[in-house]
Amino acid sequence: MSDAKKVLVVFSGGQDSTTCLLQAIRDYGRDCVSCITFFYGQKHSDEVNVAKNIAAEQGIKNHKLINLDWYNQITTNALLDSSMEIAQDAGSAYPNTVVDGRNMMFFLVAAIYAKSQGIKDIITGVCETDFSGYPDCRDVFIKSCNATLNLAMDYSFHVITPLMQLTKEQTWKMADELGMLDYVYEKTLTCYNGIVGRGCGECPSCELRQRGYDAYMASRLKIEG
Amino acid sequence: MSDAKKVLVVFSGGQDSTTCLLQAIRDYGRDCVSCITFFYGQKHSDEVNVAKNIAAEQGIKNHKLINLDWYNQITTNALLDSSMEIAQDAGSAYPNTVVDGRNMMFFLVAAIYAKSQGIKDIITGVCETDFSGYPDCRDVFIKSCNATLNLAMDYSFHVITPLMQLTKEQTWKMADELGMLDYVYEKTLTCYNGIVGRGCGECPSCELRQRGYDAYMASRLKIEG
Repeated sequence: MSDAKKVLVVFSGGQDSTTCLLQAIRDYGRDCVSCITFFYGQKHSDEVNVAKNIAAEQGIKNHKLINLDWYNQITTNALLDSSMEIAQDAGSAYPNTVVDGRNMMFFLVAAIYAKSQGIKDIITGVCETDFSGYPDCRDVFIKSCNATLNLAMDYSFHVITPLMQLTKEQTWKMADELGMLDYVYEKTLTCYNGIVGRGCGECPSCELRQRGYDAYMASRLKIEG
Repeated sequence: MSDAKKVLVVFSGGQDSTTCLLQAIRDYGRDCVSCITFFYGQKHSDEVNVAKNIAAEQGIKNHKLINLDWYNQITTNALLDSSMEIAQDAGSAYPNTVVDGRNMMFFLVAAIYAKSQGIKDIITGVCETDFSGYPDCRDVFIKSCNATLNLAMDYSFHVITPLMQLTKEQTWKMADELGMLDYVYEKTLTCYNGIVGRGCGECPSCELRQRGYDAYMASRLKIEG
């Protein structure tokens, strides 16, 4: 029996959470890392398979999959409803891919599960420098949510956000420092159109990802050159 | 089109939330009151039917039912697992009817749904003077959760807790002042063994309910006498 600290990674199979997973494996040791993946009627349910494959490849023994397909009973948006186009409504502060309460739901379910496993550390790849300004990616939300979770369950969760202040360029650097730059580039799925790796190259998510990658590769070349 | 303030009541069909529902009907007007009921593999799914009947009888047009039966994928306890006996474990601070994160889940789902309906006021019957000391019934949790919800969705929810500081005796008084004492006594379901109204008379919930009722009736007789 080991007293080694355990961790639960909220894991989507995208660039950000995959980088967090790889860092957690380095920092906690493979056997102490669990991960949890949510699916809820995403347009591209392949996302779940991408996450499953990465977790299996990385030797994660405990990968919990949670189906939140009831989510569209209570609200809707372009990620949940395949008849809607992804767009930034001119009159709205947020793009129509905002799923109200999504991150809070992820953290709450993750925390309930973590407590059932005796896990206190929860890692998430949320990032407030991200382009879309989702309110539930802000650090102030994460800190408030952490306090609320601890009060709700009388437990000492630590919600850890390694990417909170990083640009996409810096997240690529992090993957490189973990020796996993190519792995993250080729294996992860961030594209709104469901294309693994480089992606469709046209959706906002692909553009952000590629711009960060190009910037990082340029700076790396400069250093190496 | 009316600008009247709307409200969503988290409604189980028990004494507390029924009293809150009746008060909301008085304060907001019947047509401005919606309610939401959760079920998740309770031993007594009749609870849902009790809630449905009360809401219909009270003329609530919008009664949302949410199935959380996936909850036992992430944690378990005596309310979710019919093979467990309800008990207060001697070594534990809490009875084994605690469902980790339950109220936070209720408020989160209620809030997501409320926002989709343009509703900001959310009423819940939670009460920190309650006997069991559930951590997610405390006022400090509710206030923290309210702040987190507002940050998560960039919205101004008001989580309202009319019973927070009341004893059961005072909650019966409130029903009486609404002219609904007998209605609440006869129609609601609080009993762990699923018996409507007076209940089994033996579970902790029935004992608490009856003790409060007896105390209120004694004090009322004294005043009337």
